[in-house]
Amino acid sequence: MNSSVLTALERAVGHQRRFDVSFEKYFAELAGDVGGSRLGHFTPRCLQLLAELSLRGGKRIRIALLYEAARLVTEEEVPGLLEAALSLELLHSHALVLDDIIDDSPLRRGGLSTYYACREDLPENPQAALGLAMMIGDLAGFLALRVLVQADLPADRKQAMLDVQLGVTTDTVIGQILDLERDVTSSADEGLLETVCEYKTARYSILAPLRLGLLAAGEDLAEHEESLRRYAALAGISGQMRDDYLDLFGDPDVTGKPIGADLRAGRRTYLVRDLLAATDADEHDTVKAALGSPDCTPQTIDRIRDIAYRRGVHHHLQSAIDRHAEAASAEAASWRRHWHEEAVAVFEQLPSWNTRRTR
Amino acid sequence: MNSSVLTALERAVGHQRRFDVSFEKYFAELAGDVGGSRLGHFTPRCLQLLAELSLRGGKRIRIALLYEAARLVTEEEVPGLLEAALSLELLHSHALVLDDIIDDSPLRRGGLSTYYACREDLPENPQAALGLAMMIGDLAGFLALRVLVQADLPADRKQAMLDVQLGVTTDTVIGQILDLERDVTSSADEGLLETVCEYKTARYSILAPLRLGLLAAGEDLAEHEESLRRYAALAGISGQMRDDYLDLFGDPDVTGKPIGADLRAGRRTYLVRDLLAATDADEHDTVKAALGSPDCTPQTIDRIRDIAYRRGVHHHLQSAIDRHAEAASAEAASWRRHWHEEAVAVFEQLPSWNTRRTR
Repeated sequence: MNSSVLTALERAVGHQRRFDVSFEKYFAELAGDVGGSRLGHFTPRCLQLLAELSLRGGKRIRIALLYEAARLVTEEEVPGLLEAALSLELLHSHALVLDDIIDDSPLRRGGLSTYYACREDLPENPQAALGLAMMIGDLAGFLALRVLVQADLPADRKQAMLDVQLGVTTDTVIGQILDLERDVTSSADEGLLETVCEYKTARYSILAPLRLGLLAAGEDLAEHEESLRRYAALAGISGQMRDDYLDLFGDPDVTGKPIGADLRAGRRTYLVRDLLAATDADEHDTVKAALGSPDCTPQTIDRIRDIAYRRGVHHHLQSAIDRHAEAASAEAASWRRHWHEEAVAVFEQLPSWNTRRTR
Repeated sequence: MNSSVLTALERAVGHQRRFDVSFEKYFAELAGDVGGSRLGHFTPRCLQLLAELSLRGGKRIRIALLYEAARLVTEEEVPGLLEAALSLELLHSHALVLDDIIDDSPLRRGGLSTYYACREDLPENPQAALGLAMMIGDLAGFLALRVLVQADLPADRKQAMLDVQLGVTTDTVIGQILDLERDVTSSADEGLLETVCEYKTARYSILAPLRLGLLAAGEDLAEHEESLRRYAALAGISGQMRDDYLDLFGDPDVTGKPIGADLRAGRRTYLVRDLLAATDADEHDTVKAALGSPDCTPQTIDRIRDIAYRRGVHHHLQSAIDRHAEAASAEAASWRRHWHEEAVAVFEQLPSWNTRRTR
């Protein structure tokens, strides 16, 4: 890496570190904020579980995108960025809690999923555990909007930022519904895969932080909308393909999820699409039999991985990942015409940092 | 009833009717608003299920409270009331969808609960049905806030109304968590019952519409806050006791729920508290055995109802309902000092309309 890339990377890490400190402070105050002596035992525990999941981190790519989006326009301190950051990560926690209920996933971010933590708390009452997990997710979603509504910002700027986040909530719900449709109807149609990805990832993990950062910095989005969308879609597909790739080729210690979880859950991912396209009849049957079989053995998953390597599925998917990441970078490069060089460099580099972890 | 009460009642019914027309229009436009050609089959179906549940009604007490709260201050047309009304009812749909998942309830408002409608759509995929129902609830909650954010209102008024609705969301989540705690820990502690009721009913079904109506009409809430809270708490407890009463003494054709559903679900209601307090050892055992037994027979429920009648539980609970309703009326009567007579009369009458249905 050359030195400007290193600087950009260091700056992104700095945003993430500072955010983590603020996020911890947010949760420390939240308990007192909504709490009180009449809240019983379960409410503090729910708040604790939300804090644990949220603070256990993840990559905080959204945070880097948000702060650097503001820096595209100005190097000054920008009010409202912290609230936007909290809003983004709370909305993400919301989505993770609900995803793990829907997918019945025991693990998340290297620990128990919130749903399974609730089940461990109430081993004899799975229905109440489901209820508590749902309430934790619900709360996170509303807190994500509350933190923005309560931000001390000019009314028109706050309105624009709320419009973005409320658009994100609708898009994410639709993305999740499309995702369920894809799995239930066993559709691996390319168009549906891309729509799911756009609604579930691109708009909310990439486009929203970009828009929020630019809006907070006072930029008018209208003339940049199309380029922002293209960047988000390309980087989003690249990132989604990487997630799908990791299901078979990733290191479970790094991903925090067991190998083959998507396969066992019957998810029609980019990886599954490539696997089914590249295999002969016998292999095809092996993959089909594993797909959606929760009891599928680790040996079978190993066999499928061997098939995938033999058929070059890892190469094929990796090059698609790179191709999309490179196209996203090229889109960002065009921003040099009107925005600050240093921040543009971050957006150019980001898609490939985000996908380099696949190898 | 005297003629001023009749006028008040007619006016409340008028608000409700006009609202129902607007709510239908909202859903007709919503499909186009969030929709598009790429949304697959499941998303339109989810929007349809949300519309069906929402339009199937319920008593719309919140709507009468909201519109009459504005009339406490002014008889002029008040901008923002319709958006507040949509917000209240969408948030209510949100709570109903989630409640029915948590309680595993097949019926709601005289039809299938949203959760069970999803299960009927996907009989072979209960996990996906759960996911879809969760997404419908999730969407309703976010739409409730979106409709307010998008209202064409002065910024400070919108801010105050958003603060109210966001407070409601947190309170309702806490109320639901406390409710689960009550059932899981079999606590029938009076303090916890009242806290659940305050968080789950009073603040959101009574206090919020009152505040929103007054705010939309331009009233400063600070000096009225305590009286509004007292009114909401008293009317809320009265209404909750009535709901609990109906579980054993109601007409299932009217309530839309089978008799004894709370008992079978093991809910520690005001009725259960009174039953356990009034019965002798044998009867006590019968009630305890039924409590939390989903398979409890209609015959057992009939026996418990006979016990309740014999022990005068219906009289005891009904007089507590009346006492709270009367105290709420007395609180509203004090509003004559500063607010319009005609609307005050509605708030005086409302607690007893709301509870008269028990007999």
